[in-house]
Amino acid sequence: MTGRYAVLTGGVGGAKLVDGLYRLLPANSLTAIVNTGDDFRHFGLPISPDIDTLLYTLSGNSNQKLGWGREGETWNFMEALRSLGGEDWFNLGDGDLALHVMRGIALQAGETLSAVTVRFAAAWELALNIVPMSDDVVATWVESDEGPLPFQRYFVERHCQPKVKSVSFEGAATARPAPGVIEAIKSADAVLIAPSNPWLSVDPILAVPGIRSALLDCAGPVIAVSPLVDGKAVKGPTAKLMGELGLAISNDAIWDHYADFLDGLIVHGDDLAPAGIAVTRTDTMMHSANDRERVAGVALNFANVLLE
Amino acid sequence: MTGRYAVLTGGVGGAKLVDGLYRLLPANSLTAIVNTGDDFRHFGLPISPDIDTLLYTLSGNSNQKLGWGREGETWNFMEALRSLGGEDWFNLGDGDLALHVMRGIALQAGETLSAVTVRFAAAWELALNIVPMSDDVVATWVESDEGPLPFQRYFVERHCQPKVKSVSFEGAATARPAPGVIEAIKSADAVLIAPSNPWLSVDPILAVPGIRSALLDCAGPVIAVSPLVDGKAVKGPTAKLMGELGLAISNDAIWDHYADFLDGLIVHGDDLAPAGIAVTRTDTMMHSANDRERVAGVALNFANVLLE
Repeated sequence: MTGRYAVLTGGVGGAKLVDGLYRLLPANSLTAIVNTGDDFRHFGLPISPDIDTLLYTLSGNSNQKLGWGREGETWNFMEALRSLGGEDWFNLGDGDLALHVMRGIALQAGETLSAVTVRFAAAWELALNIVPMSDDVVATWVESDEGPLPFQRYFVERHCQPKVKSVSFEGAATARPAPGVIEAIKSADAVLIAPSNPWLSVDPILAVPGIRSALLDCAGPVIAVSPLVDGKAVKGPTAKLMGELGLAISNDAIWDHYADFLDGLIVHGDDLAPAGIAVTRTDTMMHSANDRERVAGVALNFANVLLE
Repeated sequence: MTGRYAVLTGGVGGAKLVDGLYRLLPANSLTAIVNTGDDFRHFGLPISPDIDTLLYTLSGNSNQKLGWGREGETWNFMEALRSLGGEDWFNLGDGDLALHVMRGIALQAGETLSAVTVRFAAAWELALNIVPMSDDVVATWVESDEGPLPFQRYFVERHCQPKVKSVSFEGAATARPAPGVIEAIKSADAVLIAPSNPWLSVDPILAVPGIRSALLDCAGPVIAVSPLVDGKAVKGPTAKLMGELGLAISNDAIWDHYADFLDGLIVHGDDLAPAGIAVTRTDTMMHSANDRERVAGVALNFANVLLE
């Protein structure tokens, strides 16, 4: 037992589970490996939505009302931009901009995304390791009935309306896992897969060569929290996407997706679960900080049970 | 008579005179040739303080209380930046950022500074030609008792405290006047020199090859509004700088500075003025819109008198 844990995460639901784990575990025992397939350049600025969502959530700066972005955010930048005829399909809050501008300077100066992320986490006194899946550029593309779309165009501009035929990760084949990613997985007492969208948020991480095999090799159990609740997605396009990809919207499909490396699945309430696998149940809706702690606690306990 | 006028300007005082001229003159008859020696890159963003001050002033967006920046500005970006350990000596307002970000994208795409400026002015429906002195990079440096300082470090970070020995304009020798600058000067019924700092705001313009000789060649009179009021500078380092450069703080020194091309000088109230030159007098303090119109009117009338 190393007393160390790793979690694969992307998006808002993922950040909530990480927050729960962070609240429960001793300082500096958790590594969050974050999807960067959603990352893109906008106005020349490097945006890392999943890293930033995690930073905002863990530091208590996340906007509860919007469900994304910063607490107390203002929008003067967007308003001025609009008055000058600038593109306004992607909302950048005034405070949020600071992260992108500072990240831009750092990357320009040759710093890696993982090094910048460590600095941001330290500035906000976060005692965990937040690491991008890769320091190399990987871009999620959605092949849709309207042709290929970069992830943010599909997700933000088009509100996930186009029908998805397939998803691909440009640059993934030659991307290297960021420093520490493989070690964090292999040495973990347990690896958790957050209730993030398996196809859009977790698959980009798994597409980075070496990460999937590290999950197969790791000593501890690998446990996923299902993103389905009452047979539906909590938020976002998971269920719609599963239908479009020809999958049943079920925990069987979630299990099948991770089957090669998964040791256990946490499902919501009385939701149907595949037979013959290690399953535990809890209310996986994480409305409050208490909910996050509870789901994280169920996951860590499940890991201990599977280790025995 | 072409019915066209040009004005050389920089800073807040300059923007006020341009505003007065813009209020008095028919649409599209004024060209403002703007100092870009103060321009610099900050956080990778191209900042053009004098162009932006003019845009804000003419569009009614200037912050009257601060004396610089935008009306109704918010500072969430700076606050977030500070929390991440970013440099905070230069304040960038949330709305102000939109200009710099959009300018950055445009320059990156190969657009010229003058073309971007035309677009910004059009977006805010400004019916005058705002043109940078040059599309080439010219940077004002202050040689001080503490060594050489880039303009903004001297002006903003050090509040003009270092003693100035000399001022230089990096890149000026090979800079070309922006398209339209020479024509605007030569064809003008009158060229005005705004009450901007002659050494810091007007000299960079005059340092661009071709501009000084255009002033010598122009058909109409060249008239300066003295930046001195009651023998002092209204705001900013003009008087302090004149002393450090070994000059008397007087309208004689202002006249001498522009003597080779100047046809008339507008001085404040009863301030002393050089003998034997064309002088007119008015209260040059421009507190209100009415003051701006009045000073502009005095200048245009003075030009007509000198033409007769």
